[in-house]
Amino acid sequence: MTRLRWGMIGGGEGSQIGPAHRLGALADGQFDLVAGALDADPDRGRDFARRLGIAPDRAYGDWQEMLEGERNREDRLDLVTVATPNATHFEITRAFLQAGFHVLCEKPMTMTVEEAEEIVCVARDTGRICAVNYCYSAYPMVREMRAMVRSGQIGKVRLVVTNFSHGHHADAADADNPRVRWRYDPALAGNSGQFADCGIHAMHMASFVTGDQVERVSADFVSAIPSRVLEDDAMVNFRMAGGTVGRLWTSSVAVGRQHGFDIQVFGETGGLRWASEQPNQVWYTPLGGRTQIIEKGEPGLSEDAARLSRVPIAHPEGFPLAVANIYVDLAAAIRGETRDGIPLAEDGLRSVAAIHACVSSARAGGQWVDARPPMFR
Amino acid sequence: MTRLRWGMIGGGEGSQIGPAHRLGALADGQFDLVAGALDADPDRGRDFARRLGIAPDRAYGDWQEMLEGERNREDRLDLVTVATPNATHFEITRAFLQAGFHVLCEKPMTMTVEEAEEIVCVARDTGRICAVNYCYSAYPMVREMRAMVRSGQIGKVRLVVTNFSHGHHADAADADNPRVRWRYDPALAGNSGQFADCGIHAMHMASFVTGDQVERVSADFVSAIPSRVLEDDAMVNFRMAGGTVGRLWTSSVAVGRQHGFDIQVFGETGGLRWASEQPNQVWYTPLGGRTQIIEKGEPGLSEDAARLSRVPIAHPEGFPLAVANIYVDLAAAIRGETRDGIPLAEDGLRSVAAIHACVSSARAGGQWVDARPPMFR
Amino acid sequence: MTRLRWGMIGGGEGSQIGPAHRLGALADGQFDLVAGALDADPDRGRDFARRLGIAPDRAYGDWQEMLEGERNREDRLDLVTVATPNATHFEITRAFLQAGFHVLCEKPMTMTVEEAEEIVCVARDTGRICAVNYCYSAYPMVREMRAMVRSGQIGKVRLVVTNFSHGHHADAADADNPRVRWRYDPALAGNSGQFADCGIHAMHMASFVTGDQVERVSADFVSAIPSRVLEDDAMVNFRMAGGTVGRLWTSSVAVGRQHGFDIQVFGETGGLRWASEQPNQVWYTPLGGRTQIIEKGEPGLSEDAARLSRVPIAHPEGFPLAVANIYVDLAAAIRGETRDGIPLAEDGLRSVAAIHACVSSARAGGQWVDARPPMFR
Amino acid sequence: MTRLRWGMIGGGEGSQIGPAHRLGALADGQFDLVAGALDADPDRGRDFARRLGIAPDRAYGDWQEMLEGERNREDRLDLVTVATPNATHFEITRAFLQAGFHVLCEKPMTMTVEEAEEIVCVARDTGRICAVNYCYSAYPMVREMRAMVRSGQIGKVRLVVTNFSHGHHADAADADNPRVRWRYDPALAGNSGQFADCGIHAMHMASFVTGDQVERVSADFVSAIPSRVLEDDAMVNFRMAGGTVGRLWTSSVAVGRQHGFDIQVFGETGGLRWASEQPNQVWYTPLGGRTQIIEKGEPGLSEDAARLSRVPIAHPEGFPLAVANIYVDLAAAIRGETRDGIPLAEDGLRSVAAIHACVSSARAGGQWVDARPPMFR
Ligand SMILES: NC(=O)c1ccc[n+]([C@@H]2O[C@H](COP(=O)([O-])OP(=O)(O)OC[C@H]3O[C@@H](n4cnc5c(N)ncnc54)[C@H](O)[C@@H]3O)[C@@H](O)[C@H]2O)c1
Ligand SMILES: NC(=O)c1ccc[n+]([C@@H]2O[C@H](COP(=O)([O-])OP(=O)(O)OC[C@H]3O[C@@H](n4cnc5c(N)ncnc54)[C@H](O)[C@@H]3O)[C@@H](O)[C@H]2O)c1
Ligand SMILES: NC(=O)c1ccc[n+]([C@@H]2O[C@H](COP(=O)([O-])OP(=O)(O)OC[C@H]3O[C@@H](n4cnc5c(N)ncnc54)[C@H](O)[C@@H]3O)[C@@H](O)[C@H]2O)c1
Ligand SMILES: NC(=O)c1ccc[n+]([C@@H]2O[C@H](COP(=O)([O-])OP(=O)(O)OC[C@H]3O[C@@H](n4cnc5c(N)ncnc54)[C@H](O)[C@@H]3O)[C@@H](O)[C@H]2O)c1
Repeated sequence: MTRLRWGMIGGGEGSQIGPAHRLGALADGQFDLVAGALDADPDRGRDFARRLGIAPDRAYGDWQEMLEGERNREDRLDLVTVATPNATHFEITRAFLQAGFHVLCEKPMTMTVEEAEEIVCVARDTGRICAVNYCYSAYPMVREMRAMVRSGQIGKVRLVVTNFSHGHHADAADADNPRVRWRYDPALAGNSGQFADCGIHAMHMASFVTGDQVERVSADFVSAIPSRVLEDDAMVNFRMAGGTVGRLWTSSVAVGRQHGFDIQVFGETGGLRWASEQPNQVWYTPLGGRTQIIEKGEPGLSEDAARLSRVPIAHPEGFPLAVANIYVDLAAAIRGETRDGIPLAEDGLRSVAAIHACVSSARAGGQWVDARPPMFR
Repeated sequence: MTRLRWGMIGGGEGSQIGPAHRLGALADGQFDLVAGALDADPDRGRDFARRLGIAPDRAYGDWQEMLEGERNREDRLDLVTVATPNATHFEITRAFLQAGFHVLCEKPMTMTVEEAEEIVCVARDTGRICAVNYCYSAYPMVREMRAMVRSGQIGKVRLVVTNFSHGHHADAADADNPRVRWRYDPALAGNSGQFADCGIHAMHMASFVTGDQVERVSADFVSAIPSRVLEDDAMVNFRMAGGTVGRLWTSSVAVGRQHGFDIQVFGETGGLRWASEQPNQVWYTPLGGRTQIIEKGEPGLSEDAARLSRVPIAHPEGFPLAVANIYVDLAAAIRGETRDGIPLAEDGLRSVAAIHACVSSARAGGQWVDARPPMFR
Repeated sequence: MTRLRWGMIGGGEGSQIGPAHRLGALADGQFDLVAGALDADPDRGRDFARRLGIAPDRAYGDWQEMLEGERNREDRLDLVTVATPNATHFEITRAFLQAGFHVLCEKPMTMTVEEAEEIVCVARDTGRICAVNYCYSAYPMVREMRAMVRSGQIGKVRLVVTNFSHGHHADAADADNPRVRWRYDPALAGNSGQFADCGIHAMHMASFVTGDQVERVSADFVSAIPSRVLEDDAMVNFRMAGGTVGRLWTSSVAVGRQHGFDIQVFGETGGLRWASEQPNQVWYTPLGGRTQIIEKGEPGLSEDAARLSRVPIAHPEGFPLAVANIYVDLAAAIRGETRDGIPLAEDGLRSVAAIHACVSSARAGGQWVDARPPMFR
Repeated sequence: MTRLRWGMIGGGEGSQIGPAHRLGALADGQFDLVAGALDADPDRGRDFARRLGIAPDRAYGDWQEMLEGERNREDRLDLVTVATPNATHFEITRAFLQAGFHVLCEKPMTMTVEEAEEIVCVARDTGRICAVNYCYSAYPMVREMRAMVRSGQIGKVRLVVTNFSHGHHADAADADNPRVRWRYDPALAGNSGQFADCGIHAMHMASFVTGDQVERVSADFVSAIPSRVLEDDAMVNFRMAGGTVGRLWTSSVAVGRQHGFDIQVFGETGGLRWASEQPNQVWYTPLGGRTQIIEKGEPGLSEDAARLSRVPIAHPEGFPLAVANIYVDLAAAIRGETRDGIPLAEDGLRSVAAIHACVSSARAGGQWVDARPPMFR
């Protein structure tokens, strides 16, 4: 087995998500980081790339340069990660797909539904993988929940309740802090703030775990800090194609919550609960029975959860390894194996459509709105 | 100090809430149980009353008999508790108030807003106390939260998020079980199921802790078990008079949740969290600081929380003692002292109005509806 | 059913354990508090007694006066609780037993093994109940653990690990605080500090849950605050008659632990865990299986645990109700019913013998010492 | 920055600790895995090495072959990891150190104190790094605890209480299972079972966090499964040079504990608690104050903890990243930077000496025994 060649756009020094991609992509020895346009500032990007061990001729100043440089190489990249700010995802992802690269794009995949549909088409046309980094879905115990739902262990799913809330944007004095401000400014962030940032992880998770799709939404968006144009707190009720009812709360002003992403799935014959801050367990309650704690790595897990439990039971695995699970699955897929848990452009599209539907609903006082992308109606 | 004379209607043998009232009323030695009409079945009620030590002439067959028997006694009752099924609260409570008794009524106080307004008026006219048993508000650490909000420790409150969910009605096979079925049958339960049963505790708590009132609601009601007419799962968004945003989820089909009542309050300068299944702590996070665990009984608590911490720090106090706190405050009020934490008829009225507003909103697809009782608009 | 007549010695205003006895004894309506010598100061004691509703002629200045006053009454006391400081337990308990009263004595029952053996003999001779307030053993979920062990659900017990540690005496500046100082002064506290205060609860619990008795101990006693003569931290290894190995840690300098009393029982086919700060659950793991959470009040509990679950599942019950469980069982026993969970003088004796054995062992550098009372060897 | 060349001995396919080393060493892009003798079976080892991307000429059949192959290469290894069974550590580690390689050896470093002292001397003589994989000490929040103790935030440390217990060897039927049996067989495991396997992590941690050394021990070793010669449960009391008292419990028959490694440190002015199954928080209680939750990645952490917090606050990091932290520090040290948190041969020696002291003490009924290695007395 030789290593795959991997390149990164964005995720420069000091970025939030960059380290998770590098730890995740490298941990399994499946990828070598051989090219990058890592920073908005070309010099900083080149310098950082070199410090990461990238050869000078592949330490690019921007993604266009990288596209040109990589397009016709013999040893061309096997995978390109796009970890830049949201507004740039579409253009970069489309360009690399069209040039024949597999792409892992950060969420949200695009700003508009039209763009997202276009990405889906380009991926289909070129036959390239376009994955979207809904990395929470790659935790082994999330896979276990999915497998349990699939095999009917909790019966037909009635209800999904999911929250993704933190308090890191609760300081009104930060209204002028550029690292925070842009997120609530439509000029830079599009039409949604907190829902597009965190809420869609929760909404993707609801689909991922239930194997069902969101059809209709009713949303209540709030700017708890009044100077913000976009929402910093949102409640979304939804209905899935199979009839499941959904409730999703997301907030960035919930002081005291660090990164509270959890999901509860309630079916006719059982319930499940998982929380991202203690990701190595699932709480499972059969109807009429006691709550049981399922541990990552315990004997008898589903194939997927067992495979992705890397270290022994009760040795915790965290966020970087969830990202690593996305990368091992991508490596396998690139090598031609089948993996069914990778979030793809279609999932990215559904999320973007859901954002737009929620925004419309919130503007209409919570009216129910079709959340399906036009191409899937 | 002599003991007060206390009588009970409902709460018979095998009832759910009866034992909590008795444990609560007696624990402090403030009340003697001297009269009762405890059961729908007169004989069972009389028999149980005697076994509880009630004198035979005050062991009544029904509440009308009790009213007649007690009305003109020298040693008349100081307090009557009404712990019968919901539909009977109005008539019994009104009758006893009118006869000059103080009353502690179970929630919901009445079935209609008109009835609730009438109770408020009767209580005002007679000058009697009409309390409603929102006993969760009497936990010492709930009082601590209220005191902290009041004294500005978390700044202006932006957001209240509260859940009260369990899974004890999740078994579809129970659809024919009479102990469960009536709760979702409008003929017996009125116009709301789970929201009226558990949700209003959460809504009262939101008001109690913030010191603010619910003005508008938008509700999504669901019958997860389709044969039910009334909702077994509800999501309610609300707005309070002072601008606070509220989110309330309540469910009886959440398999694996035992009795998950929790509340989170997020203000401009801090956040608070409390959960009824671990009621002796509050989690407090100052903006930009670390989460701190406040313990019942620790030095420096607010006066109310300190007074209601009965046993030393880290010796847990549970639900019966929360009910006891309602009773000690009632005893003090009956003896003429001032207590400001007792939930009164006005609070009961607001809850009933909120139920009706939520039902209307849910029927109108989540439209925002005024939740204030007419007399408070 | 008429109420039993109850009297109290000690437990005056401001005392630590007094309120728990009153809440516990009264909550079930089984006892009336009709007599008391509540305080070391006769006037404060009489005054407080009256405020608690005790008739003036039964509000005594000291226990001798109370003994004389109650000895020959028609309506003599059915039960006397002794909640005074440790050094007085022996004399008071013996005197009341000899006068024919049932007694509930606080732990430790006496200061010396000889005294404890004498109490056992007096109780046997007079046929009176002499109970000792190991109230933790009366939590419903502790009873559930005991029932599970008894019925063989975890197989032969190999190992018991129990801790009872807090940090409330960790402040060296408190060395001069009289409320703390006496506890580590042999003149006032006898030969053991923290072990005699908290450790013996844990040791009793180990016996109670396993149904086995401690035979040998090896102890390491430490004065973490060097000015203390008696230990404020102790580790005790022990062996039970049936071969079970025990490990017990107790500390009063464990800053950050509030009242951390927990017990873990490990058998050949399963393990159990219970913690006093979250007393309404037991964690049970069958060998090779998943951890299950057993809830107070769930269907299918053992008879004793079910009977002592007073309010519905997931409505927490705390310390005062554990004490109440001691009192309901005593009431039943006084009325002639059989109850097998009441800690008796024999248990009190075993604890006192264990304290002395641990002290000897600690002085001998941890040498193994016989912990059985002479009369049980 | 070019990558360092890394080789592995042991950690073959299906081994327990192998994956953690690979994930850890590779995650940061500091090392390339270029050589290995991965398995007791030469063919399996070579085959697995190739599948991991190791060049065929560096996929060795055994460590002697590897030593010969690597000794004189131009591109010789920068670091060799020894992850074989315990009895082989000494010989392999010594040989590679003597050949001038830096070594990371698994714990316990050797079987005898003499061997361990020899490793220390060889490392000193050759000037090579000999690290020992006490990887728990590399969790960022463990580093934070260490920094807090160092800077005096909890005052002089009085007490350290640490447990490392699991129940994975509790099944008596496993007595014949070769994967378990050898651990309790002196011929294969040396003179200690569970203490040498898990207990020494806890003992190292006690030293690491307090910055102090164990001087004397008193141990109680038990074979809960009687057919075992070596202990499967152990309690160790200890004293450190600075006077700190230690209590350490370790067990492999604690059914229901998964991998319960925790440590509590109690000082004159505060207490700390950390648990390996929730490794991203430290609980800190200042004397007389409230417990605070310190989060990995929060602002204001000590330099070391901040540096080793790789992904944002509340994105959990687990065991493989703790191992990664050992490797990044080794990479820095190999490149000539100073890192003071790497566990070294001296630490490995102290652990081995402690094992032997505990065994002696346990055999002598718990007598206190000097635990210092002869060369440090
Ligand atoms: N999957 C997840 O859990 C998760 C978590 C955090 C962020 N994200 C997503 O990752 C993306 C990046 O977020 P972040 O928080 O790391 O942002 P950030 O602002 O911390 O970092 C962005 C990085 O991209 C670089 N960059 C900006 N424009 C660039 C360009 N045109 N070309 C190359 N580099 C450019 C910046 O210099 C910086 O290094 C966003 O889309 C965000 O939604 C996902
Ligand atoms: N505050 C709380 O936390 C809480 C909790 C549970 C129930 N409740 C409320 O308490 C009330 C009773 O609920 P429950 O769960 O105990 O019901 P339940 O059905 O368990 O018991 C009702 C009791 O009332 C008796 N009863 C019925 N009709 C009567 C009548 N006309 N006269 C006298 N007695 C009569 C029944 O015989 C029975 O003993 C309800 O209003 C409920 O909403 C409140
Ligand atoms: N079972 C438990 O969990 C538990 C918990 C706490 C205390 N205790 C035990 O309860 C007993 C009392 O402890 P405390 O913490 O409440 O002590 P405390 O010092 O807080 O109160 C002692 C009370 O006894 C009164 N008193 C003292 N001497 C008296 C006398 N000769 N006659 C009458 N009253 C007298 C004092 O005035 C005071 O009111 C002790 O034996 C203690 O070990 C048990
Ligand atoms: N630091 C930790 O937290 C931690 C955790 C687990 C194990 N360990 C230590 O790691 C070491 C290995 O433990 P494990 O649990 O992975 O054992 P294991 O039995 O699961 O794996 C041992 C591996 O070493 C290989 N091996 C055996 N002899 C060899 C030899 N002579 N040359 C090359 N390879 C050889 C085996 O084929 C196997 O692949 C032990 O010393 C153990 O104490 C440390």
